[in-house]
Amino acid sequence: MTRVGQQVYQHTLANGLVLLAERMDHVRSAAINFLVPAGSAFDPQGQFGVASVLAEMITRGAGDRDSRELSLALDNLGVDRDESVGAVNMRFWGSTLARNVPAALDIYADIVLRPHLPEDELEPVQELALQDIKALEDAPQSKVMVELRRRYYPPPLNKDRRGTAEDIEALTIDAVRAQYTNSVRPNGAILSVAGNIEWEPLKAQVERLFGDWKPGAVAEANPLPHTATSAHIEKDTQQTQIALAFPSVPVTDPDYYNARAAASVLSGGMSSRLFTEVREIRSLCYSVYAFHETFKTQGTMLAYAGTRAKFAQRTLDVMMREFHRLKAGIETDEIDRVKAGLKSSLIMQEESTGARAGAIATDWYYLGRVRPFDEIQAIIDGLTPANIMSYLERCPVRDVSLVTLGPAALTITAEADVEAAVAAADTVAAEEAAKEQAGEPA
Amino acid sequence: MTRVGQQVYQHTLANGLVLLAERMDHVRSAAINFLVPAGSAFDPQGQFGVASVLAEMITRGAGDRDSRELSLALDNLGVDRDESVGAVNMRFWGSTLARNVPAALDIYADIVLRPHLPEDELEPVQELALQDIKALEDAPQSKVMVELRRRYYPPPLNKDRRGTAEDIEALTIDAVRAQYTNSVRPNGAILSVAGNIEWEPLKAQVERLFGDWKPGAVAEANPLPHTATSAHIEKDTQQTQIALAFPSVPVTDPDYYNARAAASVLSGGMSSRLFTEVREIRSLCYSVYAFHETFKTQGTMLAYAGTRAKFAQRTLDVMMREFHRLKAGIETDEIDRVKAGLKSSLIMQEESTGARAGAIATDWYYLGRVRPFDEIQAIIDGLTPANIMSYLERCPVRDVSLVTLGPAALTITAEADVEAAVAAADTVAAEEAAKEQAGEPA
Repeated sequence: MTRVGQQVYQHTLANGLVLLAERMDHVRSAAINFLVPAGSAFDPQGQFGVASVLAEMITRGAGDRDSRELSLALDNLGVDRDESVGAVNMRFWGSTLARNVPAALDIYADIVLRPHLPEDELEPVQELALQDIKALEDAPQSKVMVELRRRYYPPPLNKDRRGTAEDIEALTIDAVRAQYTNSVRPNGAILSVAGNIEWEPLKAQVERLFGDWKPGAVAEANPLPHTATSAHIEKDTQQTQIALAFPSVPVTDPDYYNARAAASVLSGGMSSRLFTEVREIRSLCYSVYAFHETFKTQGTMLAYAGTRAKFAQRTLDVMMREFHRLKAGIETDEIDRVKAGLKSSLIMQEESTGARAGAIATDWYYLGRVRPFDEIQAIIDGLTPANIMSYLERCPVRDVSLVTLGPAALTITAEADVEAAVAAADTVAAEEAAKEQAGEPA
Repeated sequence: MTRVGQQVYQHTLANGLVLLAERMDHVRSAAINFLVPAGSAFDPQGQFGVASVLAEMITRGAGDRDSRELSLALDNLGVDRDESVGAVNMRFWGSTLARNVPAALDIYADIVLRPHLPEDELEPVQELALQDIKALEDAPQSKVMVELRRRYYPPPLNKDRRGTAEDIEALTIDAVRAQYTNSVRPNGAILSVAGNIEWEPLKAQVERLFGDWKPGAVAEANPLPHTATSAHIEKDTQQTQIALAFPSVPVTDPDYYNARAAASVLSGGMSSRLFTEVREIRSLCYSVYAFHETFKTQGTMLAYAGTRAKFAQRTLDVMMREFHRLKAGIETDEIDRVKAGLKSSLIMQEESTGARAGAIATDWYYLGRVRPFDEIQAIIDGLTPANIMSYLERCPVRDVSLVTLGPAALTITAEADVEAAVAAADTVAAEEAAKEQAGEPA
């Protein structure tokens, strides 16, 4: 049960492409994770959604293979794969037997460097992108988070990958090709592989495949000045969807793990505060959680709940009260549970090729290095209530952006009033329950 | 890269409880999976949803701990956990560091054997169950599958875990306690653990914890005579949800892997037939898939798609055509890709404690034994087009149950007409596209 020495390798090609690998001796699989800074943030004005269209087009023929031949080649290797677009990065992900990684990388080099971007595939891809936009209308849980991020984050970080129907419909093949040329570059890109791999042959192959990739000017996703806003989206749903966000610290900040620990005190397990107060004690909703999210430039605390309209204001009040109440103090045993949960997650991550390929790339993207397990473990071990309290003083609950979706709007109760609001609602609920038990209509 | 010898252990307690373990030397985590045959199938008439209510109540105090103390104790151990209810089994799942497994098992023994089932927790739990029912109304993708299974499967296998609002509201604490007494029994239950565990101490602990658990009469989920039906659920959604099912073979049948391979030819990768014909060639929807599902007594082929209303009939026609077209022949290279995908999945499963804890319990539940990797590998290696064709002759596409949810109903086109229907719709679509390109309104 001793931790086997971590075997992490790194090499930067002359063109800027960063290759990362983690060798895991006792597995037979490997995962590939390729981040290219070509996410939605770089969608030009009037072309919102072009990054997503490009991510779908880029696999429709590349190198010597047409669209179908590419799919066949990757399926022949048993590659479980996915191409996706985030705010900053376009991501190519594949997982298969370690011995198939070299052949898979040959194909990914074609996809990234030599895509055909054929004109006759544009219309079908546009149609799919429009379907994706329509589907969001039928998924209120997802939609409320999209609408929150749209209002909370500064441009260009606030763009949703789906773009807009108008822009998607107006896209030309030239625009898609221009987006490829302008955004798919080796500088800023990170290719990571984790699993039962051999470093030297991998490095040599990546040099051979990607060494000639030309670097170029790469846009930066610099956030513009912005004031977060709130909104209610009226919709005839059974449940009211509640999503909120307010500023925290980014992953580069020394307080990052204190912020994550604060989120875990609220939402890190079934004994956590939000789960206990909202779900267990008051039965206000089936699903409630808070989490921390980060860009290079900013970190954010977010929270979600979905509940019946008649419970929605009370749910929001309880959530806000719990956020405010953090600064009244955190118990040592709460932090011990947070530590136990974070350690358990870390161990799970160590055992998964997919999780490790993702983690080493993410570390490099944000920090320019891969954090050893022992370093993360030491940070977790070092968490204290005092350090978290000092983070909470630095980043109190303020400038909350609230987006709701459902039959009726909600309001954020002022901090000074929230305790009384929760108490009053609890009293009303207790009275109604007593009446109901006595057989009167509630 | 040689496969390490699999270390699987099994022990049956005198009361019938089956203990299974798989030792995985090179991990530090372990997962616990506890199946008790107390699923929704055993909900008595007028108490639909009682199994789900019981699964929520059972963790609200047990042994020496009240509800809160139980959550604290499991969170202190870093247990990532979940309790869920399926058609046949209630499932307790937990994952944590291997060294915490003994302490976690002590707690699970309290939960399963000594739950308080406190009366004052019933109303909050009923409220949560009602919220769960409401939430389904806002999730059409999930709802269409629930409504399909309700109509396709024979009672009692067709019951949804959520039950009905009327029955949930009418539940009494006595009914919940009776459900516990009648359904939570060691005979038929399977406790599995996978990870870095020691077999002898585990076996001794489980004997000590569960040895006194009294066996009793256990209901069988024997399917009643039933004719599957179809339905359209009218709803003002952006997309039409399509779900269909028809008979296949269960996991106990020698043709089981042939059935799964047939599903994979349709839906096993991005080059698979449904994905290619529906999504890649015709852009009819973002999400389309087919899969095989099994009970002990019957197996089923299912398929799903979500698409715009105007594309819905064409999507269904293409899906049905692909199902029918299987029997016209399967290429060797298609089977090679299916094999590559299944092997890749098997390797991933071997490396995950959670997946292995689930797999060994599922094997035992269905087959009364754990299949070694080498046996599954040999079955995969032995797949041939001829064997799959013989399965397709035995289980042709017939008695299809179709449930749609959206603005308008669809019809299943007869097999003799489906090719022509697809061709006609393709022609219309091509003409519309040509007009649109020429600038005319489509």
